[in-house]
Amino acid sequence: MLTKAEIQRLRSLREKKHREELGLFVVEGEKVIAELLGAGFAFEEVYATEGAGAVLPPRHRVTSVTADEMARVSHFPTPSRLLAVGRIRRAPLPPRTLDRGLTLALDGVQDAGNVGTLLRIADWFALDRVVLSPDCADLFNQKVINASMGSFARVTVHTTDLAEALAETSVPVLGCDLAGDDVHALPAHPHAVIVIGREGSGLSAPVKARVTHYVTIPRFGGAESLNAGVAAAIVCDNLRRALGR
Amino acid sequence: MLTKAEIQRLRSLREKKHREELGLFVVEGEKVIAELLGAGFAFEEVYATEGAGAVLPPRHRVTSVTADEMARVSHFPTPSRLLAVGRIRRAPLPPRTLDRGLTLALDGVQDAGNVGTLLRIADWFALDRVVLSPDCADLFNQKVINASMGSFARVTVHTTDLAEALAETSVPVLGCDLAGDDVHALPAHPHAVIVIGREGSGLSAPVKARVTHYVTIPRFGGAESLNAGVAAAIVCDNLRRALGR
Repeated sequence: MLTKAEIQRLRSLREKKHREELGLFVVEGEKVIAELLGAGFAFEEVYATEGAGAVLPPRHRVTSVTADEMARVSHFPTPSRLLAVGRIRRAPLPPRTLDRGLTLALDGVQDAGNVGTLLRIADWFALDRVVLSPDCADLFNQKVINASMGSFARVTVHTTDLAEALAETSVPVLGCDLAGDDVHALPAHPHAVIVIGREGSGLSAPVKARVTHYVTIPRFGGAESLNAGVAAAIVCDNLRRALGR
Repeated sequence: MLTKAEIQRLRSLREKKHREELGLFVVEGEKVIAELLGAGFAFEEVYATEGAGAVLPPRHRVTSVTADEMARVSHFPTPSRLLAVGRIRRAPLPPRTLDRGLTLALDGVQDAGNVGTLLRIADWFALDRVVLSPDCADLFNQKVINASMGSFARVTVHTTDLAEALAETSVPVLGCDLAGDDVHALPAHPHAVIVIGREGSGLSAPVKARVTHYVTIPRFGGAESLNAGVAAAIVCDNLRRALGR
């Protein structure tokens, strides 16, 4: 039996303001919770309706709730049978981090589904990290976590002023546009940052000023652009192909 | 001033059943309507609130409506200032069509946003056509049209029994899985069908039985899969690269 205050607290976590105040975030759904547990993520609290919780490891601490209580705490019109609360941890970006390995940097990507898809792509191609500008969709928004599948728990993510971070590195900074070098001729950069801009408007001026190489995905038909996830994935595939690993 | 019956008719088009009965579909939003007009699509009716309609060509026929009327006919909680009605045209798939050129075939892709994104990818890579199985998201669903950007009007789309259509062609049928041939070594197939399966469950058994070649996008990290659009785009990029055009 949840108290009114507990219900209120869980419900409040749908808003970023309250997530930041409490340092907590919510994720709902048996599949995504199982994926995150499988990826080694440790939750602070788990709430389950009767019979749910089979995806949890043996002896994982669970608070049983009624279907009615779950409906009241859920962030969705159709509640899941499992809701978990995790602690927000934001890793600072240590100096010179971008100098080593491959980084995917998102500059104001607003759509939570796109941010989640981009985390999944970074995970698939084993990029070393993802860097978010502060105006991206919030990493601890449920829609980001759901769209990332389990990748939310496997990818190292930093949130930082992107233009400042790029100013401090000397590795190639790759942007996508329609007049760059053919991505099929991409050199084997072992250390590089791939920057992806906001849906619709693209890279911000301060980040654009830090791009050292523009690459272009050859276009054959009439579409004006590809979406952020598709463009990032094609660049990553070509970069991994050039690197031969 | 719209009559009650007109409002009722426009509202009803949010449901596939009514779209099929009337042979009409709705699209809302100045940007997408401008894109479709730019791609040569002719609408049957256009409704605009005062001052909207600037994206329309000179002398395009427009019915002026009040903001209140638009709110009543709109399919969205936040209505646009422009709503257009188009006629549903479904091109039958002529025999032996799949024998020539490049086809993207969607097998039960349920998510309207994914179907739209896949149309946009087919357009970017100038595939000759997209074939939808009848259980895909409805092509005339607004979310499909919005996600496709203008590509809805530029790509030739057929809806047909996919396994039957594949049974009648002798060109390579390419499926994606985790144990196929490296997509980076894809031969230059000038005629081929790329099949993309349902989110989560993949290809249906009858379509799977028609796949002649499996291709794999090399994976380096922990993600279990890529989403449908990302996988299709990487296969298309590699196929175009192999073809050299």
